[in-house]
Amino acid sequence: MAKNEIPYKIYLSENEMPAQWYNVRADMKVKPAPLLNPGTHQPMTAEELGGVFCEELVKQEMDNDNRFIAIPQEILDFYKMYRPSPLVRAYCLEKKLGTPAKIYYKFEGNNTSGSHKLNSAIAQAYYAKNQGLKGVTTETGAGQWGTALSMACAYLGLDCKVYMVKVSYEQKPFRREVMRTYGASVTPSPSDTTNVGRKILAEFPGTTGSLGCAISEAVEVAVSTPGYRYVLGSVLNQVLLHQSVIGLEAKIAMDKYGIKPDVIIGCAGGGSNLGGLIAPFMGEKLRGEADYRIIAVEPASCPSFTRGKFAYDFCDTGMVCPLAKMYTLGSGFIPAPNHAGGLRYHGMSPVLSQLYHDGYMEARAVEQTKVFQAAEEFARCEGILPAPESSHAIRAAMDEALKCKETGEAKTILFGLTGTGYFDMVAYEKFHDGKMTDYIPTDADLEKGFAGLPKVD
Amino acid sequence: MAKNEIPYKIYLSENEMPAQWYNVRADMKVKPAPLLNPGTHQPMTAEELGGVFCEELVKQEMDNDNRFIAIPQEILDFYKMYRPSPLVRAYCLEKKLGTPAKIYYKFEGNNTSGSHKLNSAIAQAYYAKNQGLKGVTTETGAGQWGTALSMACAYLGLDCKVYMVKVSYEQKPFRREVMRTYGASVTPSPSDTTNVGRKILAEFPGTTGSLGCAISEAVEVAVSTPGYRYVLGSVLNQVLLHQSVIGLEAKIAMDKYGIKPDVIIGCAGGGSNLGGLIAPFMGEKLRGEADYRIIAVEPASCPSFTRGKFAYDFCDTGMVCPLAKMYTLGSGFIPAPNHAGGLRYHGMSPVLSQLYHDGYMEARAVEQTKVFQAAEEFARCEGILPAPESSHAIRAAMDEALKCKETGEAKTILFGLTGTGYFDMVAYEKFHDGKMTDYIPTDADLEKGFAGLPKVD
Repeated sequence: MAKNEIPYKIYLSENEMPAQWYNVRADMKVKPAPLLNPGTHQPMTAEELGGVFCEELVKQEMDNDNRFIAIPQEILDFYKMYRPSPLVRAYCLEKKLGTPAKIYYKFEGNNTSGSHKLNSAIAQAYYAKNQGLKGVTTETGAGQWGTALSMACAYLGLDCKVYMVKVSYEQKPFRREVMRTYGASVTPSPSDTTNVGRKILAEFPGTTGSLGCAISEAVEVAVSTPGYRYVLGSVLNQVLLHQSVIGLEAKIAMDKYGIKPDVIIGCAGGGSNLGGLIAPFMGEKLRGEADYRIIAVEPASCPSFTRGKFAYDFCDTGMVCPLAKMYTLGSGFIPAPNHAGGLRYHGMSPVLSQLYHDGYMEARAVEQTKVFQAAEEFARCEGILPAPESSHAIRAAMDEALKCKETGEAKTILFGLTGTGYFDMVAYEKFHDGKMTDYIPTDADLEKGFAGLPKVD
Repeated sequence: MAKNEIPYKIYLSENEMPAQWYNVRADMKVKPAPLLNPGTHQPMTAEELGGVFCEELVKQEMDNDNRFIAIPQEILDFYKMYRPSPLVRAYCLEKKLGTPAKIYYKFEGNNTSGSHKLNSAIAQAYYAKNQGLKGVTTETGAGQWGTALSMACAYLGLDCKVYMVKVSYEQKPFRREVMRTYGASVTPSPSDTTNVGRKILAEFPGTTGSLGCAISEAVEVAVSTPGYRYVLGSVLNQVLLHQSVIGLEAKIAMDKYGIKPDVIIGCAGGGSNLGGLIAPFMGEKLRGEADYRIIAVEPASCPSFTRGKFAYDFCDTGMVCPLAKMYTLGSGFIPAPNHAGGLRYHGMSPVLSQLYHDGYMEARAVEQTKVFQAAEEFARCEGILPAPESSHAIRAAMDEALKCKETGEAKTILFGLTGTGYFDMVAYEKFHDGKMTDYIPTDADLEKGFAGLPKVD
């Protein structure tokens, strides 16, 4: 195995770790469109947002100017418990593929939440605690975000109320138990603890819930309970800011060894991982200092970037959250039930949406059986059992490496390995048993989702 | 938070990683007793052992003389994919306990097998491959060992047949799927694929199996299938040798920062983790170069060290394996069904048994509800969700740190955090719901197990 000077894993030392987040909006010529009040369609004011989010996070959400924002010491201390995450050279995968490409991945799964979500969870929990709040509310689907937030809240002594989509609550009891281990209260959604939940239960008895409904319940509890605010694991500008720690660490590690990626690849659901991974590289690209190919990978069954519309849309199905301008399939769009691979959100980060719209990045959609093939191949040579979400990026990275094999180009590929798949074995089992199928929505399916888009001038 | 110069996590660089395993037997004045042929009660010859284990591993099993054994390059390459494991300073746990003690743990859970088992799995699979074998067989209970072996075999392109205790096979389908992801065939035991399995099924229809029965099936398949050998995840001398990488890394990291542990703590089932963690420290102690308190922690419901007998015993219930001289509860001893915390083996590594017998280490038994209390407290401040097995060591480390709080002593405590608990959430759920109970066998219970001990002169 050729190894030159690059170790299998590059770990930064504590004093090499970034002490500031990078705010890519500062370098964007066209800024992401502001959030709108869902009633008036006017830009949300800081005061309006302050009823839902805590103060410091509202500032971060609206800050399009400051390039760097200092990471508070308490968050740095927490980061040191599970970061830096390793930048791994995929020597074994390269060998197996027989490619001249050099493949690197930034692995964010080595913490109990199993994903990068913890990077923003601790930040959001910290600012809530710092504002003197008693607790936070959130929703969770697959459970990675809920787990991350529970861990952060346990560490800070903050109460944590999680609304978990009922079907996940019942089918993923282990995820629920991890959250309980961290002291969170976990409520299956829809529930009878909120007005919106009771309304939905009355209208659709026996419903197994949806992420949109869980968001609406979590927001209702946050705004109606003194001392509580709502927190969210993706989509928002603040989340991308916190997740920039992924890309900053990756860039410091690569610079240290004189490695320059030609292609940067990340999976995209709401955009939290992709936005974080690419942040400092995109900054260089926006400032004209360097060029990189940047590829967002999404499921063919939920293709916001590749087949969605760039428009204002609701962030939740209860329509209580602000409107965001983003690539969207419509808040009523629901991926087919055979879709196992996560990344089910109908919309996409407004920051990434604007960058994609302005031509700074590419996007491609991949089918889930091909994603699981890549996941298994990766697991067998690189050891790590990847999350289905992360495996979208693996699929694209392998495809790029195989293209290099054809052309003989020794490109350097960097991709984000966002997390582990320990709680996704039901999907792996389907794949092993040959019971996994693919689904691509028809244009008519998509039109139904688009029909629900709000009319915003 | 006081932090002086010690980082949260100490990672060795690749060139600091050990290139040799350390064989503690070389420094033992009284060597562990040899394995005996179960029929003749004579010491097993290399030739006899060669029918079950591959050649190089037989040499390692019988080698009481060579202090260091070089780690082959291919194994070093594999180690680099997931090692070094971090040595973590438990700053947050110290703060929460309010103790002047300095607590360190060596965390072995950051790989997909979820535990230290991979350190020996890759070694055993490598030697099998190197001997030109086609595959290996083994048994697994909770599934950590089976997962580790599947990963190692997938990497090397070796066939892997796992006999999984039927009750685990049915109750832990996710573990089974992880092994399948790595291409292993997993058979619930007892099965109709072996003579011993068919015999047991005929005698006890509807049995849910046992580890002892699964061992017997795996050994039968290994010795009766050309090109196959049997491999084992604990107890054996060779396993402790491979696991010495844990202690060697820990010692290099501590020496680098001038840290000397006063107390070293590990959980003990068959002894693979404890034996590996303490190896180089025990070596210094045996050579009179340094002194350390070394504590083995075992479940009160399966107390081999603290209440067992030091005697020759069967390693499996089918009585096809060699006899080993060890602390044992008798091969017929089965922990109570309410026991959730792993570490269920009736015996103990012959190396550790001899060292314990000769006064080089202490042992203590802890009850499982106290173990889960410690696990939850640890998870909430240190982030990591620990395996129940590992949490036995956490319990003892916390107890030692709390003693320091009383006496005001700033002792340095090192413990082994062997793995993660993602697949143990059923036990955590019982604990959260207040349904977990403790069990301590009566002397009469133990006498039943002792009655089955073979008579060896």
